Amino acid sequence: MITTIVYIEVKPDCVNDFIEATVKNHQASVKEAGNMRFDFLQSNSNPCSFVLYEAYETEEEAAKHKETAHYLEWREKVAPFMAEQRLGVRYKAIKPENSLKLNYEQL
Amino acid sequence: MITTIVYIEVKPDCVNDFIEATVKNHQASVKEAGNMRFDFLQSNSNPCSFVLYEAYETEEEAAKHKETAHYLEWREKVAPFMAEQRLGVRYKAIKPENSLKLNYEQL
Repeated sequence: MITTIVYIEVKPDCVNDFIEATVKNHQASVKEAGNMRFDFLQSNSNPCSFVLYEAYETEEEAAKHKETAHYLEWREKVAPFMAEQRLGVRYKAIKPENSLKLNYEQL
Repeated sequence: MITTIVYIEVKPDCVNDFIEATVKNHQASVKEAGNMRFDFLQSNSNPCSFVLYEAYETEEEAAKHKETAHYLEWREKVAPFMAEQRLGVRYKAIKPENSLKLNYEQL
């Protein structure tokens, strides 16, 4: 499982618009074939500070995400909301060893 | 869903022992009632740099984790392996709104 922690700092007056656009991205991303996680988090200490915790089964599936219409639309939409450049940090999962698909149909 | 990203820097000669202890902690933690995620990650760029991505349904369940025998054993075991103090950063999940339990029985 390939994971990326994306750190995002948003301008204070753009927080609501950013959340709206990112919820839409989340909803489409979790339907991608290789997607294992797409948690959208807001810092407890700073409401302008967000994290996307993304995991894919393979490098190929992670790369494909960046070619999807919903990712490209999100990237363009949120560009003016950024307070600083986004930072994505890559990790490999030691555990779980096998990818576990979240069952969003439970919701 | 309450999430914590724990950043851990390990001394180079302790990496294998740290992984062994943390795999054990992972295996017990995912069986806790309120546990939603316990991903154990290693940085792609630095093999001494690790992340624990932990999520619990509630603050109470997250707090209970720190009282478990497996957590307390892990904490004592890994203390001498740390290259610097661990840092845990708390987030609330905007999405998924409801907690999704990973089904480890799939493995």
